[in-house]
Amino acid sequence: MLAPNYFEAMDYAGIVRDYGRPETFVERFTRTSRDELRALQEARFATLMQRAWQVPFYQRLWGGKGIEAGDIRSLDDITKLPTYSKSELMQSVEAHPPIGDFDGRASYTPETRPPLVFQTTSGTTGKPQPLLFGPRSREIQNLLLARFYALQGITGDDVIHSVYGHGMVNGGHYVREAVVHWVGAQLLSAGTGVETRSNNQVTLMKEFGASVIVGFGDYIKRLSDVARELGLEPGRDIPIRIISGHIGAESPESMSAAWGGAEVYDWYGVGDTGAIAGEGPDRAGLYVQEDAQFLEILDIETGAPVADGEAGDMVCTCLFKDDVFPIVRFNTHDVSRFQTDSSPMGLNLRRIAGFLGRSDNMVKLRGINIYPTGIGAVLTENHPELMSEYVCEVTRTEGRDEMIVHVETRGALDRDVTAYEKLLRTRFGVDIAIRLAAPGALVDLTQIEVRQKPIRLIDRRKDA
Amino acid sequence: MLAPNYFEAMDYAGIVRDYGRPETFVERFTRTSRDELRALQEARFATLMQRAWQVPFYQRLWGGKGIEAGDIRSLDDITKLPTYSKSELMQSVEAHPPIGDFDGRASYTPETRPPLVFQTTSGTTGKPQPLLFGPRSREIQNLLLARFYALQGITGDDVIHSVYGHGMVNGGHYVREAVVHWVGAQLLSAGTGVETRSNNQVTLMKEFGASVIVGFGDYIKRLSDVARELGLEPGRDIPIRIISGHIGAESPESMSAAWGGAEVYDWYGVGDTGAIAGEGPDRAGLYVQEDAQFLEILDIETGAPVADGEAGDMVCTCLFKDDVFPIVRFNTHDVSRFQTDSSPMGLNLRRIAGFLGRSDNMVKLRGINIYPTGIGAVLTENHPELMSEYVCEVTRTEGRDEMIVHVETRGALDRDVTAYEKLLRTRFGVDIAIRLAAPGALVDLTQIEVRQKPIRLIDRRKDA
Repeated sequence: MLAPNYFEAMDYAGIVRDYGRPETFVERFTRTSRDELRALQEARFATLMQRAWQVPFYQRLWGGKGIEAGDIRSLDDITKLPTYSKSELMQSVEAHPPIGDFDGRASYTPETRPPLVFQTTSGTTGKPQPLLFGPRSREIQNLLLARFYALQGITGDDVIHSVYGHGMVNGGHYVREAVVHWVGAQLLSAGTGVETRSNNQVTLMKEFGASVIVGFGDYIKRLSDVARELGLEPGRDIPIRIISGHIGAESPESMSAAWGGAEVYDWYGVGDTGAIAGEGPDRAGLYVQEDAQFLEILDIETGAPVADGEAGDMVCTCLFKDDVFPIVRFNTHDVSRFQTDSSPMGLNLRRIAGFLGRSDNMVKLRGINIYPTGIGAVLTENHPELMSEYVCEVTRTEGRDEMIVHVETRGALDRDVTAYEKLLRTRFGVDIAIRLAAPGALVDLTQIEVRQKPIRLIDRRKDA
Repeated sequence: MLAPNYFEAMDYAGIVRDYGRPETFVERFTRTSRDELRALQEARFATLMQRAWQVPFYQRLWGGKGIEAGDIRSLDDITKLPTYSKSELMQSVEAHPPIGDFDGRASYTPETRPPLVFQTTSGTTGKPQPLLFGPRSREIQNLLLARFYALQGITGDDVIHSVYGHGMVNGGHYVREAVVHWVGAQLLSAGTGVETRSNNQVTLMKEFGASVIVGFGDYIKRLSDVARELGLEPGRDIPIRIISGHIGAESPESMSAAWGGAEVYDWYGVGDTGAIAGEGPDRAGLYVQEDAQFLEILDIETGAPVADGEAGDMVCTCLFKDDVFPIVRFNTHDVSRFQTDSSPMGLNLRRIAGFLGRSDNMVKLRGINIYPTGIGAVLTENHPELMSEYVCEVTRTEGRDEMIVHVETRGALDRDVTAYEKLLRTRFGVDIAIRLAAPGALVDLTQIEVRQKPIRLIDRRKDA
């Protein structure tokens, strides 16, 4: 008997029975009550935990703390389990090369073992990490992203230009699968500026009538500049309706303006988990797909749950990932907070504020927590003459930490920067210096052309 | 009612009923008689023609020649239909931007219309051409490639390193789908040297235990050189079992030797059609998947069928492509010939000799047809001191055409080349000059690092 292939292991009928087609997302979560949702979560969590206990990585992580299967009887008990992050996964890879011992495929028989879907992270924060999926959890992830695209008004009639990278990196393949398998729109899988040069990306969008752009905000903004350099007016010559991706240095307002008034939507997820939360047309924060993702927000220092509305680390349990590499309390080290007001759209789902910064990239400046990834939006939102390219440099002189924000701007570079520095002081409560740079002058430091996520922090304190 | 998504339109059960899982390929075609196969071909051809008659591109191409549906009653009538090639498709794109009028999706109702899978060619020979697939024909294509991988001994236990490019280009996505959906092996989707630098490709293979490499032969050979530069011995430190792809300048023997004795298998297909023919362990030519691909070999000048064993243009009708962009008599302008002896493995399928050259890239040198893509293998096979990097330069002086082959070599560049020139004269029947170049000296001309298919011909006759 042949082992199940991708389609047999994914079980399309089962996925649609459990999660519905993405187009039914709003209807589904208007109708489902919080109690029904909790019951669904509990049932999926029980299945997930059964699988997770068969995985050596969790046997070690949990067993090492004296936890037994009977100790975790419902989601109320989840805080008894330790969180872990990328570093524990990389230790597992180190000890059990080449892919670690967190996939759990050894617990299947050869006749039931699902094939492995394998990609890696982009290695933004060091060595690339293996990302492991089974066909079923992979396709549910794809469906979850397609739900957000549907929520945001993207349909099968759109032409979607994707600037997520391919190669070993997961992002481009993930988005391609979500669009091709579940949205049914025509996809332009352009990839990064390395795969398809920025000039060609713009030509491609114009030629094939792109109506939607998906990807990282910084590069999407950059493509509007490239279009103008080619004599094209974004919005008119390339009539983009919707931008969906990850807001970077740019504010949504300036991204929209750069693309002729396109609707700009944010969504959040990491490589391991897939799409967790996404913005809807009510612009009231990012809806968490709670039937699939159980999200906690925990105090960065103590690891205890924070009060609703307070910022902390997002820790995710993927209720749907019950085939390969179950994910239980994965600390993303990305910071957000729950919204506390009710949903304007009437969806019975919790919302988060979106990505506020990385806790492990946070700079403590004289007692104040600063997220370099959040500084760009503050500047460009208030001072449109500043461009979205910037990088924060932190130095230590005689025990005192200082931050200088280098930011690209049009116009004179020796002009007065007091107003900018005052803005940062008002917003962050600490002195931060500004240095102006010519357009394009920071591209080698930020690596915007070659990295999905540009570098925003250069920490020179280790050099001192 | 929602339009069918990818999985609904592909109909997994229907595909497996019609084509079988790829692992059953040998068993299937040992058992199926030629008569049964012909009956299957006729049934599929009838379905295909019904769809094709609904496509404006064919209505114009055939109607313009006064052909009516009733004129084509079986495969015996296929020679009544004109062939066409990439240039007619590009004219269709020109007249009906942006994707031409050959997809045929307008003939469906909104409730039955399958989503469009869209990629492009790499644009090796000019502007990239749109490649259009429906979910059903896309997955059958993927299955057809997986059949060859199965025939060649690749299994779900392999770790497959792919150097096919991604981005807009079809190759990488096609191979990824074939491996992930139908082979079930762990895939390293490294892509070209632009996506993953050559040093990193080698590190990746070593780290994740690659056992198979798939892609274009020239770059696969180059990776063996890069491995050695990094102090790794291909075959020992990176134990590759199998190489499957497209033999380029290198002979299979020298590719195998470069990778420590790996089995090297060839397969042939183009972007529009997918995998047409592939080599098996009997090394007796490339088996044509005749239940899916109806292949003709036609005289390059007259377009009439050639006698078996004679070389001509490969013209393909995709019997399985009955959802989006039906393909009926597509002239690939790639040259091959049918093998006439019987199959050592006992498969009831015709075989071809493999890719012999491109008829539209053929150089007529004093009455003799030369395919520049075939010259490299002749040289390296007989003179291992020559390397696989080469480029042919054709010039015209006072009405006389001359070809100079520039080839990289180790050792002295001013040494005697008479033996090489004599070999070419014996093999091709015409004088061709040789110029030696240092290792790496031709990389800017061949563009091997950035192109899937390196440049092998520089035609300077137009400059004269």
